[in-house]
Amino acid sequence: MRPSACPGTRLAPYNAAMERNDLRRRRARALGPAYRLFYDVPLHIVRGEGAWLYDADGRRYLDGYNNVAVVGHAHPAVVDALAAQAARLNSHTRYLHEGVVAYAERLTSLLPDGLDTCMFTCTGTEANDLAVRMARAVTGHTGAVTLADAYHGHSVAVYPLSTEDCPAQERPPWVAVAPAPDEYRAGARNRRDAFAAERGAAVGEAAAGLSARGHGAALFLCDTAFSSNGVLMPPPAYLETAFAGIRAAGGLALADEVQAGLWRLGEQAWGFRAAGVVPDIVTLGKPLGAGYPIGALVTRRDIAEAFAREHHYFNTFAGSPVAAAVGLAVLDVIEAEDIPRNVRATGRHLADGLHGLQQRYPLVGDVRGAGLFFGIELVRDRATRAPAPDAAGRIRERLRENGVLLGTTGPHGNVLKIRPPLVFGRAHADLLLQVLEESLEWAQHGG
Amino acid sequence: MRPSACPGTRLAPYNAAMERNDLRRRRARALGPAYRLFYDVPLHIVRGEGAWLYDADGRRYLDGYNNVAVVGHAHPAVVDALAAQAARLNSHTRYLHEGVVAYAERLTSLLPDGLDTCMFTCTGTEANDLAVRMARAVTGHTGAVTLADAYHGHSVAVYPLSTEDCPAQERPPWVAVAPAPDEYRAGARNRRDAFAAERGAAVGEAAAGLSARGHGAALFLCDTAFSSNGVLMPPPAYLETAFAGIRAAGGLALADEVQAGLWRLGEQAWGFRAAGVVPDIVTLGKPLGAGYPIGALVTRRDIAEAFAREHHYFNTFAGSPVAAAVGLAVLDVIEAEDIPRNVRATGRHLADGLHGLQQRYPLVGDVRGAGLFFGIELVRDRATRAPAPDAAGRIRERLRENGVLLGTTGPHGNVLKIRPPLVFGRAHADLLLQVLEESLEWAQHGG
Repeated sequence: MRPSACPGTRLAPYNAAMERNDLRRRRARALGPAYRLFYDVPLHIVRGEGAWLYDADGRRYLDGYNNVAVVGHAHPAVVDALAAQAARLNSHTRYLHEGVVAYAERLTSLLPDGLDTCMFTCTGTEANDLAVRMARAVTGHTGAVTLADAYHGHSVAVYPLSTEDCPAQERPPWVAVAPAPDEYRAGARNRRDAFAAERGAAVGEAAAGLSARGHGAALFLCDTAFSSNGVLMPPPAYLETAFAGIRAAGGLALADEVQAGLWRLGEQAWGFRAAGVVPDIVTLGKPLGAGYPIGALVTRRDIAEAFAREHHYFNTFAGSPVAAAVGLAVLDVIEAEDIPRNVRATGRHLADGLHGLQQRYPLVGDVRGAGLFFGIELVRDRATRAPAPDAAGRIRERLRENGVLLGTTGPHGNVLKIRPPLVFGRAHADLLLQVLEESLEWAQHGG
Repeated sequence: MRPSACPGTRLAPYNAAMERNDLRRRRARALGPAYRLFYDVPLHIVRGEGAWLYDADGRRYLDGYNNVAVVGHAHPAVVDALAAQAARLNSHTRYLHEGVVAYAERLTSLLPDGLDTCMFTCTGTEANDLAVRMARAVTGHTGAVTLADAYHGHSVAVYPLSTEDCPAQERPPWVAVAPAPDEYRAGARNRRDAFAAERGAAVGEAAAGLSARGHGAALFLCDTAFSSNGVLMPPPAYLETAFAGIRAAGGLALADEVQAGLWRLGEQAWGFRAAGVVPDIVTLGKPLGAGYPIGALVTRRDIAEAFAREHHYFNTFAGSPVAAAVGLAVLDVIEAEDIPRNVRATGRHLADGLHGLQQRYPLVGDVRGAGLFFGIELVRDRATRAPAPDAAGRIRERLRENGVLLGTTGPHGNVLKIRPPLVFGRAHADLLLQVLEESLEWAQHGG
């Protein structure tokens, strides 16, 4: 239990609230105002283990949010691999090293045949940025089609593709935006396949618009979990039609697997697999290194060769012996602990519970997701689907007070996002469901 | 000693050359052709310690090249800090954490007053890319002035500023290029200050050219060690005039300290210090994390605030508790071992030796540098200064054969680059000088 803040009391041996406020002031001075903190009362986290985070007061929180710690916080096998390789060598890809080769071989073995060439970066942003460079070099076009309310990173070139952040008036002419396949908000649940095909066709139309503006379409990129759209799960017709549309315009189809990758969605390692499509480029990030900065781009040999005709590539820290050792350790743990099986089992249990809450609480307009990635869309009225962002925000804060960490997302900010470490088990799911139900009950009664 | 390659002999218990060739083939398959390897016969490095690297045959090489391993390869204090924090927590900057705040405070304490706000990235490329975003947002301009033969990174936006790599015909209209302050190649050694001022003024002229093209100058960025130009050390008039010129055009002055930063040049922590100027933005990279991916941007509060008016900033892995612990450990080691003192002492000894070689070998046209960063420019004829890139390449390969690692750089590829870990001591310098002299002797006689 946290001691309360007692500014007048000098006897308190350790006042965590005062320390937190002091740290917050120092942080604002040192890091500046472009940084944000989660929660109205920010968390001061000092330790992590498995699916749990601990604050400076020793209080523990169930982590229902952090996907980077994919095999659980501070997994000992990952830490050991990191420490052992760092004690031995950390250099770069201009010397031969077994690690980067073995890691590239391991990653490509998890992807469909043909996606056989790997390039390493330090972040998902760098992977998407490299994909833009590569698609432009290979197609001779300059334009990109992205979705509304998308997030793909923060570099100069990728920021305009992150339509969640970049305002329309700052959008450069080489970016075209297609609407997301949000069947719930469009009221299209009774015609899912037709709606998915319509929204997929919008990608081809956006690409044609780019060509009309003199750019040509170099690529379409898509987060295959549609995370910032509120976690969408369109039928296969969506990616099938979208990929066909961008290819017809002479562009490449890119699956951004930074969110969906490494079995987040349970059944398969990658989000695009559910649609039965094969992208031209796949980009990877967040979970790869369980916190160590690793991103990657995987593509076909012919594309890598066309890029290499006029470009060479070096990224100082990427693909280093340490990065490779950590990346391999994460994949080893996923295999040794049969994490995909846990994702499916816990995911099914969590989905059942969430659908139960939807039955009991009119505030829950929609439950979407797969594996261990869910969006719970809160509405003021189920008939009109009017978004309830205030309720979502209040519930997120109450959950935090009650020791459970979730986020909010979606274009209206009314979608609770559940995206825990993949070691989240049945007991964790039950606790989350219990605390979430209490919060829904409270919110439903005007809390 | 390495066993030689014996393709027909099956009795060899361990054939490192065959293993190396096999690894090279697997690497070419898995990583594609955009990657490059150092040396005609690539090194297969498996271990590092201090200033030494060891290959798979157990042979050791004196590392005169790698600046990332700033406190020496696999420094135990850095490895311990990395392992301890990774075992405890690796999360992100949206929770409060002491580490990122302490690291930002420590970095800004090393910079001039006013440069007090820190933003973290994972790479130097990301830091320069963020600087472009920031300078554009703050100035309302879009253009950038960069130097000929510069290297600043590889993102879509930064690649065109890396004129060493990006061909002129691919240069977008928002980039203007000014000539580097290369007094040796310009034959201006007898009028150093005037030449520096002229080349500095060229930055203002390039900025004016951007304005004439309708872009306006958002920034001038400059590697303060002029590494890819062949390691230049212009007098203070250069940066003074260049910074005045970009500011007169309404742009920001950026010092890219990825190469020069953290006492590489001996006397001071940062390259711009020698010129007595204060940049508007400083970007940092390579040595910060001794191999752990850390980059940073430091700027004034007013610039950070102007950026934050329309932009917020988050970089998943950057400024994490582990990154901060490693960054702090590197600074602790630099302080505890008084690395700057070693840089100055070894640097002076190495400089004396290199100037001695210049006296004895006509091939050595020029020796430039400070601290532990030197460029040795090889020429076919001292009077005409005709570059000798072939000799530089042959000497680099011969040094590698004789167990010393150096690189080549410069617009003509004729500059030997010495840039070792900063723990390089007098005995390392003597060995380097001895092997270098043998190679010069060999090359001078047509080797």
